[in-house]
Amino acid sequence: MEPVFLTLADTVGAARRRSAKWAADDPDVLPLTVAELDVALAPPVADALAAAVAASDTGYSWAVPGLGRAWAGFAARRWGWAVDPAAVTAVPDVEVGVVEVLRALGARGRPVAFSPPVYPPFWAWVAVVGAVACEVPLARDPWRLDLAALDRAFAEHRPAAYLLCSPQNPVGRVHEAAELAELVALAGRHGVPLVVDEIHSPLTLPGAVHTPLLTVPGAADVAVSVLSASKAFNLSGLTCAAVVSGSPAGRAVVDRLPPDLTSRTGHLGVLASVAALEHGDAWLDGLLAALAARFDQLGDLLARHLPEVGWTRPEATYLAWLDVSALPGDPVEAFLRRGRVALQDGARFGGPGFARLNAGTGPDVLAEAVARMAAALR
Amino acid sequence: MEPVFLTLADTVGAARRRSAKWAADDPDVLPLTVAELDVALAPPVADALAAAVAASDTGYSWAVPGLGRAWAGFAARRWGWAVDPAAVTAVPDVEVGVVEVLRALGARGRPVAFSPPVYPPFWAWVAVVGAVACEVPLARDPWRLDLAALDRAFAEHRPAAYLLCSPQNPVGRVHEAAELAELVALAGRHGVPLVVDEIHSPLTLPGAVHTPLLTVPGAADVAVSVLSASKAFNLSGLTCAAVVSGSPAGRAVVDRLPPDLTSRTGHLGVLASVAALEHGDAWLDGLLAALAARFDQLGDLLARHLPEVGWTRPEATYLAWLDVSALPGDPVEAFLRRGRVALQDGARFGGPGFARLNAGTGPDVLAEAVARMAAALR
Repeated sequence: MEPVFLTLADTVGAARRRSAKWAADDPDVLPLTVAELDVALAPPVADALAAAVAASDTGYSWAVPGLGRAWAGFAARRWGWAVDPAAVTAVPDVEVGVVEVLRALGARGRPVAFSPPVYPPFWAWVAVVGAVACEVPLARDPWRLDLAALDRAFAEHRPAAYLLCSPQNPVGRVHEAAELAELVALAGRHGVPLVVDEIHSPLTLPGAVHTPLLTVPGAADVAVSVLSASKAFNLSGLTCAAVVSGSPAGRAVVDRLPPDLTSRTGHLGVLASVAALEHGDAWLDGLLAALAARFDQLGDLLARHLPEVGWTRPEATYLAWLDVSALPGDPVEAFLRRGRVALQDGARFGGPGFARLNAGTGPDVLAEAVARMAAALR
Repeated sequence: MEPVFLTLADTVGAARRRSAKWAADDPDVLPLTVAELDVALAPPVADALAAAVAASDTGYSWAVPGLGRAWAGFAARRWGWAVDPAAVTAVPDVEVGVVEVLRALGARGRPVAFSPPVYPPFWAWVAVVGAVACEVPLARDPWRLDLAALDRAFAEHRPAAYLLCSPQNPVGRVHEAAELAELVALAGRHGVPLVVDEIHSPLTLPGAVHTPLLTVPGAADVAVSVLSASKAFNLSGLTCAAVVSGSPAGRAVVDRLPPDLTSRTGHLGVLASVAALEHGDAWLDGLLAALAARFDQLGDLLARHLPEVGWTRPEATYLAWLDVSALPGDPVEAFLRRGRVALQDGARFGGPGFARLNAGTGPDVLAEAVARMAAALR
């Protein structure tokens, strides 16, 4: 099942989408920013949504047992991860899941550790909880967890939690099973709960192997996972995610979440997520192959037009983390002002000198964007 | 434009909706519970949603300037309320709006006052914030604000906020302008900020006049409003509401809300709300006429089948607050167990001896439900 991507013609006039990625910039800008995917919905998802709208089925969501069963099936098929459907709690989005888990862990007023460069809301989430950001940067070349630094930080700061991004946004790292096992060991030794944002895990690209954190021996006793179908199936605006636990200790954390998170979850998000997780495998495989091809294309485009830009091909996600430090001036500003192409400044992710480029779009959009970026620097 | 209600045939088998109201109980139960409306979507809303699904426009929401403009137009036409579109902040739902406003007001650890019987989540919201519930019950016959008791409570407890429900759920009271003016005067005198949940205001029934709190002289300096199109247009599962301020003081509160509430709002909720508010007036007028007829029907049904049940016809909402204290035993339990009709126990609203009945359904569903309730008591 081939995914259908937006084309350049879809980026102008009435055809332009009204979602944040497409609405935030001027109408002549090509946005390679917000992590939305420029594809047509997977047919099973489109059918489920059209049916719900036709039936005016738009009241409050009801996620049990459907969402838990759907995640359990998907996790078993894709990762060999045995998820108990009853251990899946619907939440409106990953942010709410992470924030409420941090509150349940008593993080207010305490340090919460995480590893930049990372998704900018991590700082905001920690602030919303009233916790204190404790940055333990990734090691480089390749980007990876700095386990020695984490060991020291856990010992010194005794954080209320370590917030892991797996696979990692924006660097595209799929953490290796051995690294995760060492992280779990550190968490156990120092008594630091782990909260993992695994929203990008369905987008693990061919050649990489995602290890769900809760499948690491001992992890379920110290960790809970937050998942969503929203990145892989482009359902962010429908607001459905899930907190997954795998042990009585994890369950005890989930049991302290506010009781009405599930009813605040999007009803169409639940229906679409269930359809995606249960009937979307073939479409998702097609998407992953297409994204691999898109990164081939991006590599060629960068080599040809912007050879000064460094990058490491991502192992997951449709996001590329570009080293633009060799370019003169403020390249992200130049791309936007002169090239009418929007990227996200790496400084927001804790990575100054970098830019995040969303490659989850059609090949002609990507080619036009990189050509414009190169022209903007001339 | 006549609203189309569900019929008894729509309550069984595959035709039964999958939203919380219809999924929470056994499949043979008629649920008159969760505040969802059993209607077909207003045609402009259905068209907007179908178009968004067809375009796969399902990324993150972008609410400005559309949602503010739509609310400003609706408020001006329906209530003569001049809303500044820029003073409308999108939030995922009324709960998030109220909770985050309470946090912005520094309510943690302090009393927050409200007036039972009232929507049960009021207690949960206060608890989530870490505030302390300060109950100042409504006066009775008719149900209304107890202004003298509020004066005493404000003086004695110095609450961080008073949380008003206007129109009032579950009693259906449309607070009079003079009462609201006195409340505003009390708030000003005691320095108590007002937070008003006006989610039911578009459902003010013929014969009653809703006064938006911020239109009361002086109110904008002490109050913010939380609104949604979700009740009147049955969009709860699409997660879109709005916090509205009307003064620099109100704006200062809104500016302290977490910055990403808008991106957490449902994209389809924004699109549907804008369509509803801009193009839904005729449909809404038809709905209000139909709900008035439904309450006529409910009055007849109760008089004939359940004359021991007391009620006051609501001035707004599709919810009826029934005095079931003259019935033997636990009537809500009997209705459910023997009659297979679900109501909500008034005790959850702080009104023991009462039950809330959702009359926002088709006439044959309502007739069947009341007949079964009566039979259950025999």
